[in-house]
Amino acid sequence: MANITARNDDYSCWYNDVVAQAELADHAPVRGCMVIKPYGYALWERMQSALDDMIKATGHQNLYFPLLIPESYIKREAEHVEGFAPELAVVTHGGGKELEEPLVLRPTSETVIWATYAKWIQSYRDLPLLYNQWANVVRWEMRPRLFLRTTEFLWQEGHTAHATENEARAETESMLEVYRRFAEEWMALPVITGRKSDSERFAGAIDTFCIEAMMGDTRALQAGTSHFLGQNFAKAFDVTYQDSDGGRQHVWATSWGVSTRLVGALVMGHGDDKGLILPPKLAPYQVVVVPIYREPQRQEVLDHVDGLIKTLPDDIRVHVDDRDQFKPGYKFNDWEMRGVPLRVEVGPKDIEKGTLVLARRDSGEKEFIPQESLAQAVAERLGSIQTGMFEKAKNFREENTTETNSWDAFEARFSGDGGGGGFVWAHWDGTEETELKIKNKTKATIRCIPMETEYEPGSCVMTGKPSNGRVMFAKAY
Amino acid sequence: MANITARNDDYSCWYNDVVAQAELADHAPVRGCMVIKPYGYALWERMQSALDDMIKATGHQNLYFPLLIPESYIKREAEHVEGFAPELAVVTHGGGKELEEPLVLRPTSETVIWATYAKWIQSYRDLPLLYNQWANVVRWEMRPRLFLRTTEFLWQEGHTAHATENEARAETESMLEVYRRFAEEWMALPVITGRKSDSERFAGAIDTFCIEAMMGDTRALQAGTSHFLGQNFAKAFDVTYQDSDGGRQHVWATSWGVSTRLVGALVMGHGDDKGLILPPKLAPYQVVVVPIYREPQRQEVLDHVDGLIKTLPDDIRVHVDDRDQFKPGYKFNDWEMRGVPLRVEVGPKDIEKGTLVLARRDSGEKEFIPQESLAQAVAERLGSIQTGMFEKAKNFREENTTETNSWDAFEARFSGDGGGGGFVWAHWDGTEETELKIKNKTKATIRCIPMETEYEPGSCVMTGKPSNGRVMFAKAY
Repeated sequence: MANITARNDDYSCWYNDVVAQAELADHAPVRGCMVIKPYGYALWERMQSALDDMIKATGHQNLYFPLLIPESYIKREAEHVEGFAPELAVVTHGGGKELEEPLVLRPTSETVIWATYAKWIQSYRDLPLLYNQWANVVRWEMRPRLFLRTTEFLWQEGHTAHATENEARAETESMLEVYRRFAEEWMALPVITGRKSDSERFAGAIDTFCIEAMMGDTRALQAGTSHFLGQNFAKAFDVTYQDSDGGRQHVWATSWGVSTRLVGALVMGHGDDKGLILPPKLAPYQVVVVPIYREPQRQEVLDHVDGLIKTLPDDIRVHVDDRDQFKPGYKFNDWEMRGVPLRVEVGPKDIEKGTLVLARRDSGEKEFIPQESLAQAVAERLGSIQTGMFEKAKNFREENTTETNSWDAFEARFSGDGGGGGFVWAHWDGTEETELKIKNKTKATIRCIPMETEYEPGSCVMTGKPSNGRVMFAKAY
Repeated sequence: MANITARNDDYSCWYNDVVAQAELADHAPVRGCMVIKPYGYALWERMQSALDDMIKATGHQNLYFPLLIPESYIKREAEHVEGFAPELAVVTHGGGKELEEPLVLRPTSETVIWATYAKWIQSYRDLPLLYNQWANVVRWEMRPRLFLRTTEFLWQEGHTAHATENEARAETESMLEVYRRFAEEWMALPVITGRKSDSERFAGAIDTFCIEAMMGDTRALQAGTSHFLGQNFAKAFDVTYQDSDGGRQHVWATSWGVSTRLVGALVMGHGDDKGLILPPKLAPYQVVVVPIYREPQRQEVLDHVDGLIKTLPDDIRVHVDDRDQFKPGYKFNDWEMRGVPLRVEVGPKDIEKGTLVLARRDSGEKEFIPQESLAQAVAERLGSIQTGMFEKAKNFREENTTETNSWDAFEARFSGDGGGGGFVWAHWDGTEETELKIKNKTKATIRCIPMETEYEPGSCVMTGKPSNGRVMFAKAY
């Protein structure tokens, strides 16, 4: 039987319990690595499939670059190596011999990709290159958490090359918008979009943009990033094109990615003390049927259930739990814990009366409905759960978002142990020094600077120095 | 303009030319690794999608195990380490430090998976485990060829656990049958199914079964393998289950996989001197439309083409080549080289007359058809190309298959440089010694031993010793 720590007792324990008991993932033999179990992987596959469609619909193609990168490549872009060097895994032996040059496992693929784009790009006619890959990456992780921070993780990384700065900037923003839509429309997670401060920028980028979601403990989770790389990698790898006037120009670049971390965001963005709550669009099973019987009625009930689920359209993902070793009550709890949006209960009395019980995971509501209206009710309830989950998450975020002008209020907001402190909009003087002081005192960091800061003059919440507009602070995963 | 070496001049060059010019793959900075380019990756994605459906339809679920495996794990199964040790890539440093225990990049995942199954399997109720993963693997490669042998490649690997030997043996055979169907029904490549001799067995298996296809130079290519692992890994990792009588038993295992090597098989199984010929079910584009115009008719023709392709069903993959910098003749050659099954040509005269030209890649046939019958003609031709390609490949294989009883004839068959020698069915005395002698003299190896050898007594083609039945010899990729 599920035994999940209450969120208020220990949120971090609650997370670990849910991931383990809903069988999303397991710890691998190598510290920091994970095994993604079938139920967790089915979630990831559905996320992949939806996002892959969106990436292709915006004109991108998939391809695949290798895992192994010569160590010297990583060093070609100065900021990039500084950022990633501490996280590298290094292959020194291959085929029984020590290698002449060590190879790193890609922590991200900019370097090997731009070394290759240098061969592929000659003329303005070759541009833009709008490519994406689904791959594993390795970043050595000292404080691993399943899905949230793992030494190996799965992700997609888009890498585009453009003739002009404007075009590259537009691409960066348009992919951020794809991520926002994916988070909100598929994951039912409202996100704040914005720019990162310099200290949180991707190593090698000019500008990093992000989507930030609020988790159930009111902390922030960075759910996706889109980078404007300027000409940094084009210069490091000497990637130029001949423009229509015959001149040679360096290429402009973007990169953008989301990872298996999003599975963690789903868990913490929606879960409750009973376990997972999955948005219908991504749930591996949208409907679970628990047949209720004692022998000798078993076969009769199962046959009836067969007929019932045939009334559902093919695209509804339905599962019949016919395990004999468990009682219905156990099954109810089990599937609630696994977050299945709708449960159908059918027993001999229901068969007689032509009814069934339909129970919602999000609200816990149970209702009797006529069997012939099952298809219609399922379609309606799945839609209403999807939008209801988004609204609930949005209300929760709004209840836990404040504007603060005084340092005392700011500090109080982020004091206390497990507590999140929510999202706090406050003025900041724009310096890295102040940002670091605030972090040291409160553990809160700038999650993002709004995309189009409306000019709202004020004074930095810590130093009192002038500020052009509020930024969003939060404790973060 | 495409410039592809003729197959008869140099088959190996022809292969490299096609892979490069059809933009399937490129060499990566690290020797032996490859970049799979968008057109090659689109092919792989379609193969993945079809095979993934078949794997799921036979009751398997996907999951994901980590890339990094402790070196000690690889050593737990004696034959396994002997087979894979020479091909390992080893990570010795991570996070800036030398590791206490080196980690290997998975060359295949049996060891990490069985170490984990030991935690997951307790009782007979936990069995069978029917799992599969799509992943990259690394095997150090001394003689790399794009797709055929690369240090890193993409594949799927299924790993199943069963309570009984019979069940595991049935699984091994049923997955071999899935591979046979995939090769024949999707890739249009006829394959021979059979068992491997001991020398070609997977390191750690009791029995390895395979599908073998004939390439355009009459050599064999192993296109997929399915292994019955017995209890070897269960014993090495101490994986037992409690049976229904309360006793403890070791678990029975299978594993099976196909890889990006299949893209190479598609190239060599069907290609001709003009380049690729793709089976319609897997072609990224099934129909390419080349509009024919001079200014000022451009827009009128393109608008008309837009209307035409709207008459095709949504599931037909169609591409309009509206590049202005190339002439129609160039485009015809370009898409022929890329293997698109059908080409549509439409110009102002066709618009007037209500006709269009439909050209088949496989036969080169061109015909005028009325525009209103496009959808019907496309559906019919795609079907006929798919079956025609399979028939053609099957006839080619039959023309290049012989039964041989004399050593002189056998040796003559496999003499000569580039030549394949085809598939040769001959008697073999069953010893590894003879197999090796034959290989050393002719470069031909036993590709497979038929699944159900009909007892046909004979004498070994080399030693004259008694044989129970013929086996298939060929030079192989």
